Amino acid sequence: MCGTDNDSAEAPAPHPASRANLPSSSPYSQVQDYLSNTQRYQIIESTLREGEQFANAFFTREHKVKIATMLSEFGCQYIELTSPVSSQASYDDCKYICSLGLKAKILTHVRCNMEDAKRAVECGVDGVDLVIGTSSFLREYSHGKSMAMIKQTALEVIEYVKSKGVEVRFSSEDSFRSDLVDILALYQAVDKAGVNRVGIADTVGGATPRMVYDLVRTLRGVVGCDIECHFHDDTGCSVANAVTALEGGATHVDTSVLGIGERNGITPLGALMARMVVSAPEYTKATFDLPRLKDIEEYVASVVEINIPFNNPVTGFCAFTHKAGIHAKAILANPSTYEIIDPALFGLTRYVNITSRITGWNAVKGRITQLGLDGPGGFETDDQIKEVTAKIKQLADIRPLAIDDADSIIHAYHLQLTGNGKQQETAA
Amino acid sequence: MCGTDNDSAEAPAPHPASRANLPSSSPYSQVQDYLSNTQRYQIIESTLREGEQFANAFFTREHKVKIATMLSEFGCQYIELTSPVSSQASYDDCKYICSLGLKAKILTHVRCNMEDAKRAVECGVDGVDLVIGTSSFLREYSHGKSMAMIKQTALEVIEYVKSKGVEVRFSSEDSFRSDLVDILALYQAVDKAGVNRVGIADTVGGATPRMVYDLVRTLRGVVGCDIECHFHDDTGCSVANAVTALEGGATHVDTSVLGIGERNGITPLGALMARMVVSAPEYTKATFDLPRLKDIEEYVASVVEINIPFNNPVTGFCAFTHKAGIHAKAILANPSTYEIIDPALFGLTRYVNITSRITGWNAVKGRITQLGLDGPGGFETDDQIKEVTAKIKQLADIRPLAIDDADSIIHAYHLQLTGNGKQQETAA
Repeated sequence: MCGTDNDSAEAPAPHPASRANLPSSSPYSQVQDYLSNTQRYQIIESTLREGEQFANAFFTREHKVKIATMLSEFGCQYIELTSPVSSQASYDDCKYICSLGLKAKILTHVRCNMEDAKRAVECGVDGVDLVIGTSSFLREYSHGKSMAMIKQTALEVIEYVKSKGVEVRFSSEDSFRSDLVDILALYQAVDKAGVNRVGIADTVGGATPRMVYDLVRTLRGVVGCDIECHFHDDTGCSVANAVTALEGGATHVDTSVLGIGERNGITPLGALMARMVVSAPEYTKATFDLPRLKDIEEYVASVVEINIPFNNPVTGFCAFTHKAGIHAKAILANPSTYEIIDPALFGLTRYVNITSRITGWNAVKGRITQLGLDGPGGFETDDQIKEVTAKIKQLADIRPLAIDDADSIIHAYHLQLTGNGKQQETAA
Repeated sequence: MCGTDNDSAEAPAPHPASRANLPSSSPYSQVQDYLSNTQRYQIIESTLREGEQFANAFFTREHKVKIATMLSEFGCQYIELTSPVSSQASYDDCKYICSLGLKAKILTHVRCNMEDAKRAVECGVDGVDLVIGTSSFLREYSHGKSMAMIKQTALEVIEYVKSKGVEVRFSSEDSFRSDLVDILALYQAVDKAGVNRVGIADTVGGATPRMVYDLVRTLRGVVGCDIECHFHDDTGCSVANAVTALEGGATHVDTSVLGIGERNGITPLGALMARMVVSAPEYTKATFDLPRLKDIEEYVASVVEINIPFNNPVTGFCAFTHKAGIHAKAILANPSTYEIIDPALFGLTRYVNITSRITGWNAVKGRITQLGLDGPGGFETDDQIKEVTAKIKQLADIRPLAIDDADSIIHAYHLQLTGNGKQQETAA
């Protein structure tokens, strides 16, 4: 019924599902996007690391275990935890979660030094995510290290982690404000040293999609290992930057539930699912248990005491509500006219609003059919429906209407139409 | 102090401010982006049209006048109103708002037919925004018109509106699922007929930035008039798509306050301001009265009875809150290390959290200075600060801490340090 189901009608293409619903003469369905990993991306879910940096976050062990379990069952390939060096509970909980035998691999995110790496390995993690700031801003104001020192330390720490049979990622922080030659040289060195992934991070949230595409594509030509991306949302681009990074050759995307993290957070898991179920419907539906998304979001929202944003993709209260007359008419005929995502994929339903001054008569017709008031003896002609629509719009111009207000107007009109109503009219 | 203030250090470039904070060896600061309009974009603010299609929206005339006035004073160049054909109040309010003499030009958004266009002109608007669905989905399920009919009608209506001395825009709906050749031919024809703007719309919210760039860039080569863009946010890309459209040669972006609109809405005005104050700081600061943003968002949120999303760029409650130790240390030394936007531009301030298990001692040091407890007789050494930080982290590992909990720990430790505290200690 929905947009994403029409892929089968498309002409053959390298990624047949990635350009859903575009007619064959559109240039987008023809693009031979050889670098793109949109059809085989992996999620590094960082609610328990980046998310712990959210202003409201205080996670007990119980919270952490439940969140890790839900995310693993959802299908996230990796779960990233706060550094065990941060506090005693961070250490103990990391060790405990590693012992649970979840399907997802467990990572922890530590500063790039030997002491932190040793504590991480002690906890029994599947992988260690090393991070260091490489921008001149961070080198000057945060840790004060030169690029030569960064490289030397990195190679030592990577060698150590690998010697323990543990996955290792090396990431710069603030990659988009780092010197391009510096970070390419550094990534090339750590790639040769055998890291599993390099990571680039838009730590301040200032990158645009075209900046992301350029940097990832360039990096793709320099390293052979996987590429992980981490995008903050300060300028509202974190989801678009993630999909664009995958198009440029990135393999892994960092997310958190509802995007919680430092400041206003990072790429939200749910919004990225909305994006990827359009860009890569088959892979996304096969890999992630999408109907679980709402429960995961509601649980995390309750733990950190926030409301799910009204405009959240997929699970925002109005994500599948249609109101304007012109929209409602078409959506009733074919939902894919105004929906790129089928709500049923996430276990949700759509709603067509008929209670406003911009309501059209086709939406009211749909409601009349739902109420079973059409057909012989009831609403028989379009003119009748247009007349009752005018009555609804008239009242909706004066005050906000609830659905039962509109239903009452429809029922009253219907009563007039039926013999019963006509008799009353005659008697009056 | 903040990222956006460092532009002056950059090498000469066509748009000196658009690549803020990138060192000169970064490829991004060197790109000669001749098509880009990021330094001279205009806003078509559609809270009173698209926003009226939001599930919760019921705007009285009082609401409409206040919103239109606030947006005009903010600096939005255009304000778009619901079609006067929708209802009697829509007609009357449109006429009334046109009579106010606001600085912003008043537009109304109507179906592309003569009857609607005449009603629009009657109201005294500065411009008429014509819209028609051109995708095969909409042609089949919505209005059923062929491209030839669409073109013929469009030319007649455009001629009429122009003859009245009123601005006219012609937009397709669902442009990204329309046949490329069809819409280019149509836009070329209406451009020749003298429209002021053509519009493209991602009506279902499925476009990615690279799709947007390709379509806008192609269109830029076909028409000479202005190009307006309208992006829904179903897949979380509406802000990134807007800035990418400007980079590709678009001139006008549709927004609404907090993004309210059909389903989960369109490009939010505030998030776009966050984006553009980074991409085009000088123009954005000179054109828009940014400190008014928060009031505008709060007013609209109260009218439509929603909460401002926790993760809203700029005005979300934690947009400038820093928590992780590594971040807090650097932000205290130089805010632009972890902030791409200076909160002061929007009349806001930053906050460094010191009450969690991931707190670092540099953040606590900052707090001690704020409290005036440093210096002779108080906190004199880093070791003292590290010790009190450990006490804070110990308690924060057990339960959520408020700022006054952390302050109490600091004060208690300080009391021990001072003579007074030492005497008490001796006495005990």
